[in-house]
Amino acid sequence: MWNTRKRLPTALVLIAVVFVCIQYFPSLGFFFAVQFIILASLSEFYYLPQKKNIITNKVLGILLASVISLSFYFQWISLNLAVFSWFLLAGVYFVASIKTLEKVMVFPRSIALTFFGAFYVSFTLNHFYLIREDYGPFYVYFLLIIVIVGDSGAFVFGKLFGRHKMTPMASPKKTWEGSVSGLISACLGGVLIQQILLDETLLWKAVLFSILLHAVAQVSDPLESLFKRAAGVKDSAKILPGHGGFLDRIDSHILAAPLFYYLLLLIGMD
Amino acid sequence: MWNTRKRLPTALVLIAVVFVCIQYFPSLGFFFAVQFIILASLSEFYYLPQKKNIITNKVLGILLASVISLSFYFQWISLNLAVFSWFLLAGVYFVASIKTLEKVMVFPRSIALTFFGAFYVSFTLNHFYLIREDYGPFYVYFLLIIVIVGDSGAFVFGKLFGRHKMTPMASPKKTWEGSVSGLISACLGGVLIQQILLDETLLWKAVLFSILLHAVAQVSDPLESLFKRAAGVKDSAKILPGHGGFLDRIDSHILAAPLFYYLLLLIGMD
Repeated sequence: MWNTRKRLPTALVLIAVVFVCIQYFPSLGFFFAVQFIILASLSEFYYLPQKKNIITNKVLGILLASVISLSFYFQWISLNLAVFSWFLLAGVYFVASIKTLEKVMVFPRSIALTFFGAFYVSFTLNHFYLIREDYGPFYVYFLLIIVIVGDSGAFVFGKLFGRHKMTPMASPKKTWEGSVSGLISACLGGVLIQQILLDETLLWKAVLFSILLHAVAQVSDPLESLFKRAAGVKDSAKILPGHGGFLDRIDSHILAAPLFYYLLLLIGMD
Repeated sequence: MWNTRKRLPTALVLIAVVFVCIQYFPSLGFFFAVQFIILASLSEFYYLPQKKNIITNKVLGILLASVISLSFYFQWISLNLAVFSWFLLAGVYFVASIKTLEKVMVFPRSIALTFFGAFYVSFTLNHFYLIREDYGPFYVYFLLIIVIVGDSGAFVFGKLFGRHKMTPMASPKKTWEGSVSGLISACLGGVLIQQILLDETLLWKAVLFSILLHAVAQVSDPLESLFKRAAGVKDSAKILPGHGGFLDRIDSHILAAPLFYYLLLLIGMD
């Protein structure tokens, strides 16, 4: 995985694209950019159970991911209404279409993983859209820098100084040394963005949020790894040279993005 | 299943208890009554995959069902916040607790069925609380009568005149003849309640809603049957003499209750 020759060009392209989307895209354009990442990640997620012969319903899954997204874009569509519309559609579909005992046997796992996957990817990542919409692009940078610098710090310093393993099953290479380095890196990254771009906010809140967001990112990443390990794969896809799939790149943000949104909503940074 | 000696006393007791809850309970009392049915049904739902050695996490499932319920009781808790809180907790729990390869292998199915089950039961049935809270007990009777009279009509007349099977896998005994009789019964039941209790509402809407609610109840019931058939059981439990389990009794309402709420919210009956 740590192949600089392949990783660096991909990373530079990704950073440039992501920057343009966050900084310059109109509201709807950014929404669609988020949807692109959600759909790419969701496809990868649905591909995982297939390795163990559990076939999810990708069409219904993408539909659920989409109605969840619509509930984020349109104020008048509640998540409740979105979820129920899907339940109704999925109910009619499954009752009408399941005609063999084999299909009955896999049905509960299939509908459950389809349902869960759409929430796991679409519900969580749509908070990027809400953060930019309600608080502006600088807050998105703040979140991204904390998570990415924290991840990279943990990785690089863990490789150099790591001795004591953390979660052997979920992420066998993670060490406590890497973890502490990651936390410090995340705080430095967060404070840097706060000083440059968010100077009207409070320093101690930037530090507190950096700690919380980094901590949650460090749970979010091995959580995704559990899905990959269960499927017996190392990367969710090979689409991004040296980086695996979209889901591998975005995994730390799955819990961090909504957490940041609710921290801003309930506590605020100023 | 059609054992009048056992069914009738149970039915009378259930009707009396349900009537007292709907008519006389204070808001919070009715909320707790709904929670009792949700938790009983959810326990039965989680018991089903166990027959096929898929162990759901009942504690996390009950927690999700409960935070979903709280989002219905407290206006300031959105379903979004409730779901995210659970994601965070479940993420930390699974990452910290999964230490063997066996647990990794069952993890995706386990978390997905846990998640789905709580939505399938708690999200849907909590709409009973909303209907009574926002529109009053008479609307709850309207819903219950349509679904129960429709179900019973389909059952009784289907047994007498049924020839043509509908969904062989989901509900092998359902016939088109029973279905038409059920629809007529549901409309008669709905119009009766409208005439007696909801005379300020429109007759044609009562008929329209009766048709829609009955149709959806006829999907909701075989949908639950699919879960039972996949587990290889006939009833979700044997707790209600002659009636199976709570989930068996409530299955038709799982899609009908939220549909009625959104019909009232978006179209209205007057």
